[in-house]
Amino acid sequence: MPKERIANFCPQCGHALELQVHYALPRPSCPSCGHIVFFSPNVAVLALVEVENKVLLVQRKHEPKQGYWALPAGFMEWNEDPAAAAKREVLEETGLTITINGLIDVYHTPSDGGLADIVIAYRGTLVSGTAQAMDDAEALGWFTREDLPPLAFLPTERVLERWKSGTI
Amino acid sequence: MPKERIANFCPQCGHALELQVHYALPRPSCPSCGHIVFFSPNVAVLALVEVENKVLLVQRKHEPKQGYWALPAGFMEWNEDPAAAAKREVLEETGLTITINGLIDVYHTPSDGGLADIVIAYRGTLVSGTAQAMDDAEALGWFTREDLPPLAFLPTERVLERWKSGTI
Repeated sequence: MPKERIANFCPQCGHALELQVHYALPRPSCPSCGHIVFFSPNVAVLALVEVENKVLLVQRKHEPKQGYWALPAGFMEWNEDPAAAAKREVLEETGLTITINGLIDVYHTPSDGGLADIVIAYRGTLVSGTAQAMDDAEALGWFTREDLPPLAFLPTERVLERWKSGTI
Repeated sequence: MPKERIANFCPQCGHALELQVHYALPRPSCPSCGHIVFFSPNVAVLALVEVENKVLLVQRKHEPKQGYWALPAGFMEWNEDPAAAAKREVLEETGLTITINGLIDVYHTPSDGGLADIVIAYRGTLVSGTAQAMDDAEALGWFTREDLPPLAFLPTERVLERWKSGTI
């Protein structure tokens, strides 16, 4: 899922694409079947889960930012509810079931080293489960405001800045 | 920009795609070059602009929901800041320059008749300009809480419910 977008051939009919201006911008367009490629943003979701003044972070198993720590996060599917996607990612990475109980913010992340274009950040509440690192999480940890590890990506940094300052 | 996603041919090399399971789901995948198609959501943005207890709405020139009224909105480009996209859409449809000064909510809209998968709603403040219907707006109007016209799409309905109830 690279940041650059490549469309050389029509995904519908296979013909070579050419750039044509549609809706104010040059877009890969098919001279055979008329299909226009509109690239959509890669949308990630994350959840801030706090228990007894400690926040749940996962250590990244893979690049980018391997070894750094982030709020549980991942890409939403195109047809998924973003809040449900955040809940799913927490379950996949940590084994914990949460409920989503608030939207924190939406971040534009063109140059933070991650693969997302925008990130939707939610606040979650722990419901049940035993925390264990799974999927693309190398390790898990619960951290106080004074004891945060090296962090990955702008949304985790911004959300935890707000968490430390008490504004969320 | 239909809701269904079609990828028969590899956008990178043109080879016929086949379904392979990657990251827990069957995804169109290229047996020749290895490219995997990850479909991303179509993301729309909208802005609530209020002046003297009246909200700015645009009447839709085109289907879907032609003739119905909605908050100024449109699709963000994949590499665009969503708040900047909301500002751009207001300018394109109404000729008005706004600033974005708050996030209202993010809506999942699989079945509201629109073409977006998720919609990010912002609050905007009028800066300058003369209102005139442009682009895909048939007409413009400023409406009081008691005088709203027939509305299009779930996010406009939800945001205006909150606006009417005084919670935003």
